[in-house]
Amino acid sequence: MSSFRQRMDESRGLARLDLILKRARLVNVFSGEIHETDIGIHEGMFVGIGTYEDAERVLDLGGDYVVPGLIDGHVHIESSHLCPEEFCSLLLTHGVTTAVVDPHEIANVLGVQGIRYILDSIEDLPFNAFVALPSCVPATELETSGARLRAADLKEFLDHPRVIGLGEVMDYPGVLAAKEEMVAKLELPLRFKDGHAPGISPQDLNAYYRAGIHTEHECSTVEEARERLRRGFYVMLREGSAAKNLRDLLPAVTPENSGQCLLVTDDRHPRDLIQEGSIDHLVRLAIQEGVNPVRVIQMATINTARAIGLSRLGAVAPGFQADFVILKDLNRFEIEEVYWRGKRQSRRGERPRLAKSSIKGLTGSVHLGNRSLDQLNVKIDSKGLHSARVRVIGVQGHSLITSELVRELPIINHCISADPAQKIAKIAVLERHHKTGNVGIGFVEGLGLTKGAIASTVAHDSHNLVVVGMSDEEMNLAIETCVEMGGGLCLIEGEQVIGKLPLPIAGLMSDQDAYSIARTLSEIHEQAHSLGVFETIDPFMTLAFLSLPVIPELKLTDLGLVDAAKFQLTSLLV
Amino acid sequence: MSSFRQRMDESRGLARLDLILKRARLVNVFSGEIHETDIGIHEGMFVGIGTYEDAERVLDLGGDYVVPGLIDGHVHIESSHLCPEEFCSLLLTHGVTTAVVDPHEIANVLGVQGIRYILDSIEDLPFNAFVALPSCVPATELETSGARLRAADLKEFLDHPRVIGLGEVMDYPGVLAAKEEMVAKLELPLRFKDGHAPGISPQDLNAYYRAGIHTEHECSTVEEARERLRRGFYVMLREGSAAKNLRDLLPAVTPENSGQCLLVTDDRHPRDLIQEGSIDHLVRLAIQEGVNPVRVIQMATINTARAIGLSRLGAVAPGFQADFVILKDLNRFEIEEVYWRGKRQSRRGERPRLAKSSIKGLTGSVHLGNRSLDQLNVKIDSKGLHSARVRVIGVQGHSLITSELVRELPIINHCISADPAQKIAKIAVLERHHKTGNVGIGFVEGLGLTKGAIASTVAHDSHNLVVVGMSDEEMNLAIETCVEMGGGLCLIEGEQVIGKLPLPIAGLMSDQDAYSIARTLSEIHEQAHSLGVFETIDPFMTLAFLSLPVIPELKLTDLGLVDAAKFQLTSLLV
Repeated sequence: MSSFRQRMDESRGLARLDLILKRARLVNVFSGEIHETDIGIHEGMFVGIGTYEDAERVLDLGGDYVVPGLIDGHVHIESSHLCPEEFCSLLLTHGVTTAVVDPHEIANVLGVQGIRYILDSIEDLPFNAFVALPSCVPATELETSGARLRAADLKEFLDHPRVIGLGEVMDYPGVLAAKEEMVAKLELPLRFKDGHAPGISPQDLNAYYRAGIHTEHECSTVEEARERLRRGFYVMLREGSAAKNLRDLLPAVTPENSGQCLLVTDDRHPRDLIQEGSIDHLVRLAIQEGVNPVRVIQMATINTARAIGLSRLGAVAPGFQADFVILKDLNRFEIEEVYWRGKRQSRRGERPRLAKSSIKGLTGSVHLGNRSLDQLNVKIDSKGLHSARVRVIGVQGHSLITSELVRELPIINHCISADPAQKIAKIAVLERHHKTGNVGIGFVEGLGLTKGAIASTVAHDSHNLVVVGMSDEEMNLAIETCVEMGGGLCLIEGEQVIGKLPLPIAGLMSDQDAYSIARTLSEIHEQAHSLGVFETIDPFMTLAFLSLPVIPELKLTDLGLVDAAKFQLTSLLV
Repeated sequence: MSSFRQRMDESRGLARLDLILKRARLVNVFSGEIHETDIGIHEGMFVGIGTYEDAERVLDLGGDYVVPGLIDGHVHIESSHLCPEEFCSLLLTHGVTTAVVDPHEIANVLGVQGIRYILDSIEDLPFNAFVALPSCVPATELETSGARLRAADLKEFLDHPRVIGLGEVMDYPGVLAAKEEMVAKLELPLRFKDGHAPGISPQDLNAYYRAGIHTEHECSTVEEARERLRRGFYVMLREGSAAKNLRDLLPAVTPENSGQCLLVTDDRHPRDLIQEGSIDHLVRLAIQEGVNPVRVIQMATINTARAIGLSRLGAVAPGFQADFVILKDLNRFEIEEVYWRGKRQSRRGERPRLAKSSIKGLTGSVHLGNRSLDQLNVKIDSKGLHSARVRVIGVQGHSLITSELVRELPIINHCISADPAQKIAKIAVLERHHKTGNVGIGFVEGLGLTKGAIASTVAHDSHNLVVVGMSDEEMNLAIETCVEMGGGLCLIEGEQVIGKLPLPIAGLMSDQDAYSIARTLSEIHEQAHSLGVFETIDPFMTLAFLSLPVIPELKLTDLGLVDAAKFQLTSLLV
C-alpha cells in the first residue's frame, strides 16, 4: 500500500491515478443522493470524488450510473451445486462483488475439511468472499450428520482474515437453554453472529438478541420482521430459489428503519442465478415494488457491510475498496460493467474465467450401510384394515415451511403405501456418512408426484440421501444411482434412469461449468414435472428442505419423522 | 454480571427483574416506530421488551413515552466553566446520559495532568462520560500553549476504558501534508477520530476522510454538510452557545441520509444548559423545525452511538445499558424522569448531587512574564499622520468565524489607539503559561464595546490571557484582576472591577455550584452589555474564540495577528 503521504496526495488530486471515472452519476449510499461527479481510483481503492484529471486511464461515463458493488450478506454456495469459483464468477456478472458464505452444508458432510476447501477455493478470486463459521453442525440431534463441529474445532479458523462471523444459529433452543457448547460458540471472537430462528416467540427473541445474535433472515411475515426490528436485529430480506420473502417483507421497511434492513439470497439455484440474477434480482424486485432506488441500493450495499462489520466495503467513498457496477438505467438495473478492486471483471454478462482449486479428497462421500430390498417397507400390523391414519408432510410452493397433515393411506401387503390417487408419495432419508444403515420413512403430499422416484444427496442440513417415489422399486434404483454417482441428483421412471446430475464434491456440488449444470438441472426439473411434480414446486430444492428439522412443521430425517415446532421425533401413525 | 443462562432467563421473562416499565410508549430507534410495550430492566441493563410481570419494582407509565438516554457526541466540558461533576449533573437533568468529552482546553493548559483530572472526575459518576484524546495541543504553531502533547504522550491513556477516540483533528493541513507527528496520532488504536475542518476544500475532504477521520461538526451551510455526507462523514449538527448551526443544517438531512447525522453541542454556556438544555434543546429545535420526532431521536441516540463505536448505548434493546428518559409529550419533549443504568437520577429537573474530585494541583495556572505599563502600546513611526490603516478583526454574532477588515485608526502619542467613535477596541493576548512575556496586540470591531475593559483566561485553544478595552489603563487593571484570581473572567470600568468570575481550575473552570456560576455569568454578561457590548454578542464566549487560529478569518494569539485562512501570521498595518 502507498504511504500515508501518497494516499493524501492521491485523494487530493495531486498524484497520478490508475483510473478516473468521469461524469459518473453516483448513487451515493452515504448522502442518499444521486449526483454527477468524477471518481478517482488507485491501487484498487476509491481515493475520492469531485474532480480528478490525471490517470493512466480515464473512462468517460457520460452520465451512466455508478453503484457500489452489491453484497450478499448470507448465502450458501452449496445450494447452487456450483463450486465456489463458478459461483463467484456468476455473481460477478450480476454486480455482486462481496458475499458472506456459510459453508454449513459441506461442513455437515466433511467437517473442517469442507470449510478448508471453501477457504482455499475463494482465496485468490477477484471477489470478496467472507466466511461465517457453521454454528450448528449437526443442525440438531434429530439427524445424523457427516461431521460434528464443536467450538474447539472452529478455533483453527479464527485467525483467518476471511472468517468474520458465526454462521446462522439455528439451534435457538440451545441458545435459550444456554447449552454449554452453544455458549462456547457464541463466545468465539467473531464480528457478527448470524441468526436463524423462525417460530421463536417474540419474548424469546429478546434472549436470542441478547446472546449477541444481531442478524436474522428467517422472517416470512411483516409481523415477524417487525418483532425483530423492534429488538434491534438487522433484518435480512431474503429472496432465494426456495424461500421467497422479499415482497412479503417490504411493507415492514420504512424510511425510519431501512438502515436495519438488507438483502440476502440464502439459497440460489444456478438457473435462477443465470436467468434472474443474485442480489441484483432483489434490487430490481424492490424497485418494482416501489421502494426508493437509493434506499434499495443501501439495503444491497452499505447496510449489509455495517451489519456484518465490513468497514471498507459497500460504498464509493475515500479509502473504500473500488468495487462498483456501471448501469445505464437505474430502475431497470441492468448490469453494464462490474469492477472489483478497480479492475473490470465482467461486461454485459460476460463471465470471468476463474482458476479452480483441486477437489481431491472431497469426492466419494456417499457411504450407505448394508441395504436390503425391503428396507423401505413400512410394515404395520394391519388387523384386517385397508388403510392407516398417518402423519403426512404437507409441502407448500415457494416456502420452506411444511404443514403436518393427517391422511388415510392404503395398506398393501401389510405395508403402508404411497397413494397415487391422493398424490401422496413415500419419502425416505438414508444416513450416508457413517454406514449406520439408519433409514427414516414417511409420506409427503403436495409434490404432485404420480409415478417414478427422485433421489438426492443434497438434503439439509445433514445431507443424507433423500428419496421420494411411488414405488419401492423405483426408489431403490434411485438410491443405487446416487451411490454410483458418488452423490448427486437423479430421477427414475420404471427401470430407467431418466435424468441425473452427478455432484462429486461432498455429494453437494459439481466442479463443472455453471451453464452446463444449469442446463442439466433444467432438464431434470422438466423430467420431474413429467413425473407429475407440480409446476409451482422446485423438485430438488423442495426435497432438500424436507429433511431440515429446524424449520416447521413436519420433517423427516434418518432418525424418523420430526415435529419441528416441538423439536422432537414424532410417530408416523396417528 | 449474571451468567449467560441467567441472562437468557431474564430476557425471556422467566426470572425476577429489578424493574419493569409497564405500558411504556417506546420510541424505538431501531424499528423507527412508537409502540406500547413493557420494558424489562435488570442489573442496569435492558433485558427486553414485550411482556414482563415479575420484578422488585413495577412502574406503570400509563402510556408515557420512553426514549433512550440522549448522547452528546462532541462537547468540551471546559466551555461551561463547570467542573465535570457539575456539568454531568446538569446534563442528567436534561436527559443526557452519555457524552464524549474532548478535554483539549484543559490539556492546552495542563497537558496530561489535565486529561488525568477529567478521567478521575468522571470515573464514578452516574453518567457515561467518554474521552476523546486531544489531537491538537497546541492547536497550531501560531500560539504558545501551556503544554504540548505528542502521540507518545497520549499512549498512557490508550488502555483506559473511557478513552475511545482521537479528539477533533483541527490541524487538517498537517493531515494533508502527512506530518509525522499527526500521522502518529492518527495511527493510535482508537475507535474513532473526530474531525474539525472548516474551510477545507471539498477535494481535500477526500484525503481528510481517508485519513480515518469520519465525524465532523464544523459545518455551517447545507453545502458543507452535503460535501461531507457525500464522502461518508457522520455529520454532527451542532447547536452550541457560541456556534448555532442546527437550523441551517437541517435542510441537508433527508430520510435517506439521516443515519449519517447526529446532534452535538460542542460548547454550552451554563446559563444555556440550565435554561435551554443540552441535546434535549436540539431535539426540541429539530422537532419544531418539522423533522419527524423519531428521526430526531435517532440523531440524538443510536446514530451517535454508532458513529463513535458505542455498541451498548443509544437504544432500548436487549443487552443495552438501561439509560432512558420518560416524557409525557413527545413534541414538547419536556424531560419528566431520567434513568442511568436502571436507576433514577433526576425527576422534573431535580439535580443529582455528585461528589467532586479534588482540584489540588490544578489551580494557580496564571504565569505572566514581567509586565510593564506600556506593554499594550502599539507604537508607530507616525510621520505626522493622525491615523493608520490597520487590519481589524470583525466579529459576527452567533458565529466563530471572524472577518478581516481594514480600518483607519487614530494615532495618539505615537501609538495606534482604540476608537470609541467606530466602536473599535484594542485587544491583547498575553502568554500566561511559561512567563515568556509574549503579547500579541490587535483591534476588534463588532463587539460594541464603548468603554472599560474585559479580560479572560479562557481563550481557545491555548488559553492565554485575552483582554479587550478602550483604554490601556483599564486593560491593565483587567489583567491584574485575572492574575489575582488565579484565572477567570473580569470586567473593568474606570478604576473599578465591576464584575468577576474566578476560574481556579486551570483558569478555565470553577468547582462551585452550577447555578451560582450561571448567575454570576449572567450578571457579568449584563455588565458587559452596560459597557456597550451588543446584545447579540456573548462577550466572554466571543472573546474566547478570537484567539483560535483554526477558524477563519483573522485572529489574534500571543504571537500576533493570524491570517487563519492561510494559517500564518500577518501584520497589523496594511
